Amino acid sequence: MDKEKPKVVIVGAGFAGLECAKALRNKSVEVTVIDRQNHHLFQPLLYQVATAGLSPANIAAPIRRVLRGAPNVRVVLDEVTGVDTVGRVVTSKGGTYSYDYLMIATGAVTSYFGHDAWEKDAPGLKSLVDATSIRARILTAFEEAETSDDPDACLTFVIVGGGATGVEIAGAIAELARKALKSDFRRAHPENAKIILLEGGERLLSSFPPKLSAACKRSLEKLGVEVRLNTYVGGIDADGVDTEQGRICTRTVVWAAGVRSTAVASWLGVQGDRQGRVSVEPDLTVPGHPEVFVCGDCAVVIGEDGKPLPGVCQPAMQEGVFVAREILERIAAPTERRPPRFVYKDKGNMATIGRKMAVCQIGRFQFSGALAWLLWVTIHIWYLIGFRNRVLTLVEWAWAYVTFERGARLIVKD
Amino acid sequence: MDKEKPKVVIVGAGFAGLECAKALRNKSVEVTVIDRQNHHLFQPLLYQVATAGLSPANIAAPIRRVLRGAPNVRVVLDEVTGVDTVGRVVTSKGGTYSYDYLMIATGAVTSYFGHDAWEKDAPGLKSLVDATSIRARILTAFEEAETSDDPDACLTFVIVGGGATGVEIAGAIAELARKALKSDFRRAHPENAKIILLEGGERLLSSFPPKLSAACKRSLEKLGVEVRLNTYVGGIDADGVDTEQGRICTRTVVWAAGVRSTAVASWLGVQGDRQGRVSVEPDLTVPGHPEVFVCGDCAVVIGEDGKPLPGVCQPAMQEGVFVAREILERIAAPTERRPPRFVYKDKGNMATIGRKMAVCQIGRFQFSGALAWLLWVTIHIWYLIGFRNRVLTLVEWAWAYVTFERGARLIVKD
Repeated sequence: MDKEKPKVVIVGAGFAGLECAKALRNKSVEVTVIDRQNHHLFQPLLYQVATAGLSPANIAAPIRRVLRGAPNVRVVLDEVTGVDTVGRVVTSKGGTYSYDYLMIATGAVTSYFGHDAWEKDAPGLKSLVDATSIRARILTAFEEAETSDDPDACLTFVIVGGGATGVEIAGAIAELARKALKSDFRRAHPENAKIILLEGGERLLSSFPPKLSAACKRSLEKLGVEVRLNTYVGGIDADGVDTEQGRICTRTVVWAAGVRSTAVASWLGVQGDRQGRVSVEPDLTVPGHPEVFVCGDCAVVIGEDGKPLPGVCQPAMQEGVFVAREILERIAAPTERRPPRFVYKDKGNMATIGRKMAVCQIGRFQFSGALAWLLWVTIHIWYLIGFRNRVLTLVEWAWAYVTFERGARLIVKD
Repeated sequence: MDKEKPKVVIVGAGFAGLECAKALRNKSVEVTVIDRQNHHLFQPLLYQVATAGLSPANIAAPIRRVLRGAPNVRVVLDEVTGVDTVGRVVTSKGGTYSYDYLMIATGAVTSYFGHDAWEKDAPGLKSLVDATSIRARILTAFEEAETSDDPDACLTFVIVGGGATGVEIAGAIAELARKALKSDFRRAHPENAKIILLEGGERLLSSFPPKLSAACKRSLEKLGVEVRLNTYVGGIDADGVDTEQGRICTRTVVWAAGVRSTAVASWLGVQGDRQGRVSVEPDLTVPGHPEVFVCGDCAVVIGEDGKPLPGVCQPAMQEGVFVAREILERIAAPTERRPPRFVYKDKGNMATIGRKMAVCQIGRFQFSGALAWLLWVTIHIWYLIGFRNRVLTLVEWAWAYVTFERGARLIVKD
């Protein structure tokens, strides 16, 4: 690598980091991408791994494979521990990385709003380990029902949080129980499983228009999911969930109620917001540090409407591309100029509930049902990284569609 | 279920147990299949998971899914702890199971010949957890090479044991390094990785004819694997392997040198052989207990040539079918008769080394190379359980064949 090229360090190869690195491929910069994992994770389909629909490898792509064709991009598997913004050095477990431009996009982790003790009994869904562990819990509940004296008691599933992830998990568990597992047990009755979705607010999918929230609720109820709105969780233990309306006995709880940022604010020595996110300037830089960009779920980026952009892929991807362009422009024309403003182009919003059921908002258009589902499938296959993963996921889904089965019903135990 | 039907308990849903259960489907017996795992594992392809070629779900099938169509077969996820051969009861963590006929086929585990301390640094390959953990170790070695000051030191892989598993792992690591990972690193040179296969005996694949052992060695060497015969391992630690011929510095060792039986002999209160296997009568029953059958890798079954049958799928599958038939015959004609003798029909033996390279023995025919490989692929796809797994594995392999890539390059860490 040329020693004189400006050094760009990208921390985190999620949607923002990967898009940024891709946009810097074969440009006149020396890029280092640092991630704790060797793979980019397609998080929108993580719930499919948690509900035995897809395998981990279907929704993960080796980062260095994705960035293979670019000699100016180096990928390292390492864990960042801090940033020296004065000396412009990223410190990590494996060493140090000096930078001229730094882009941090390490995403979010599950948040229990101060109730970290709930994690043990109500795992969140943010990583592949989370997903395979939730998958094992769900499938083990059915296995236990088969040998238990009280089969039905084992078959109550509670999902906390009625955002897209909660809705998708609830719908997928319902389909798993009512279709895929239906004929496989002799004593247990998977088709009678109780699936309860708890939401603190007054509607599901609060980031969608109310009409679609209502459509989503109807679809879930049609699948046999019990939706309880305005229900706050007060306690979770190994045998149940406490709400203001009473206790629900269950051994299987999935937490989809909240996230907080990774430790970026403390690395940078700035004050994070309530979720630990870093407030950035309109050009996505950290105040006082025009060479440090923060993107994705660990940044608060204010949209056109004055509200923070949602923590989903689209803003992250657009932010990543914006940062890459901004870095290249600054290098090309290093004289003083007015920093540009990141403008988010909202292409729409969608969530899937189950077979031929999804809700979809594109601009002023709102629709639900089979068409929305088909669009959801198409877009998710399209954005999956790697032709191989697209083909395999398509085969898995086509197979599941025809047979009502689930392809990855694995409990992997040590 | 009809209370008066004879009760058959099958412990272990490997090749023997599953074939036995399948042969008892919809017969006039009440069958309970007990396994610690929820899935049947297609062990011959486990090395593909360990070397990032396939996903766990590709080579595993939910046991209850396979046995779905049989109301007389019940599958339970449970862990057997002992057998009361007098009271005819199997005891387990989850309860007790009484039987009229018992079939035990719980297979083998990795054996370190008394050096259990080696396990930590030289994992064996018997389960999916083993496979994904070995996969993570191998891939992590390449990642560490990229950040290490001495990249090449990280890239020495030692495989202990030159049987089929050792040969297959060595070949697959060589292909991974020389092909799939070749262009993905900036500092490390995966193509220079040293892959060393250690074998204590004087040839690889000792169960094959010498001609094929020689062909296998040549093929491995062509792939850049260093084969060291007559080499015994005297010690293994985190930084290397000691042999009589000197020390090999390596951080990645895979143990493929030995197995021993699961605890069947102690459950039954009989004396096992050196590998802990139970010696059975010609009809596969335990001496003195004509109602207890032991099959597969936990039994010593003497073949026509007076030698024990090898611990591979084929004898296990045939034994499973034999036991099912024998149980049904005894029920149909319960009068005294001379017990039949299990006769193994050897359909051949094959091992794969890499792309277009395998060795194959069918009766008197011995051949190696592309034809043997094509036969290996065909047979393994054919025997994989579930149409879905066949299709997906075929897609993975076709993709790998065309692109030289590996589809499951995942390091999943907690």
